[in-house]
Amino acid sequence: MTPPARAPLAAMDVQPRRKASSYPAPFAARMSGREKRQLGDVFGLSRFGVNLTTLAPGAQSALLHRHTRQEEFVYILSGTPTLRTDEGEFPLQPGMCIGFPANGLAHHLVNRTAEEVRYLEIGDRDPQDVGQYPEDDLVARFSARGWSFTRKDGTPW
Amino acid sequence: MTPPARAPLAAMDVQPRRKASSYPAPFAARMSGREKRQLGDVFGLSRFGVNLTTLAPGAQSALLHRHTRQEEFVYILSGTPTLRTDEGEFPLQPGMCIGFPANGLAHHLVNRTAEEVRYLEIGDRDPQDVGQYPEDDLVARFSARGWSFTRKDGTPW
Repeated sequence: MTPPARAPLAAMDVQPRRKASSYPAPFAARMSGREKRQLGDVFGLSRFGVNLTTLAPGAQSALLHRHTRQEEFVYILSGTPTLRTDEGEFPLQPGMCIGFPANGLAHHLVNRTAEEVRYLEIGDRDPQDVGQYPEDDLVARFSARGWSFTRKDGTPW
Repeated sequence: MTPPARAPLAAMDVQPRRKASSYPAPFAARMSGREKRQLGDVFGLSRFGVNLTTLAPGAQSALLHRHTRQEEFVYILSGTPTLRTDEGEFPLQPGMCIGFPANGLAHHLVNRTAEEVRYLEIGDRDPQDVGQYPEDDLVARFSARGWSFTRKDGTPW
């Protein structure tokens, strides 16, 4: 384990996470072109995560999802992604933001442009959190060991 | 109370907080030129706060401080503030970031330039949190009603 950084860093100098996605294989493949720099972890933060995420053209932030406990917040740094939700779509620009309370809109970002998209995503960490996926046969449960996934009927992937 | 926003917003379109500072008067005066847009609150988030903070030339982010429980994270959007800590100073540029674990470096940002500084600041909310101020006769205690302040000997300001 690298000790936490105690001095400021250029966010883009932080190495991207090695594991592209923690989703089961058929879903992980859909996260191609997404890169996460785990900025909060670098400084030893544990109560919330702050990621600098990059979406290549055609990439998406996650499967369409909501959380039962976790709150999320997104701030667009560059590029013009589309926010897809279960209540419609919203075009985003740099300097725009949105917060997602628990049990709120299901959501994800998709990059339908030819330019890279960069954004900050923030989420707290609740050991009871469950991720729900309206468009996919998937349920995520958070624990001290990270996310574990099953099908909606509880059987493993 | 305005109901929480459910659609994305341009962060700069969010109205700045009316109360310039919750510090007692002699300290609040030193926060002149600082403006906070409480982005997380606008969307009904309660577990952590996300502020877009603007520092006019000569302004500072806060008194030099650390928290006993709260974690903080800062991402510079524009301008070149100086990070002052109890272990030295660091020049910052857009795209730089730093996280402050609880009981870590005492810190604040100062804008010694002629240009405005803009940054995102994120912090969780812990009802047991205490703010410590190495350079000032001040102690802050967090509760459901917000921050309350005393001198270091416990007497009120």
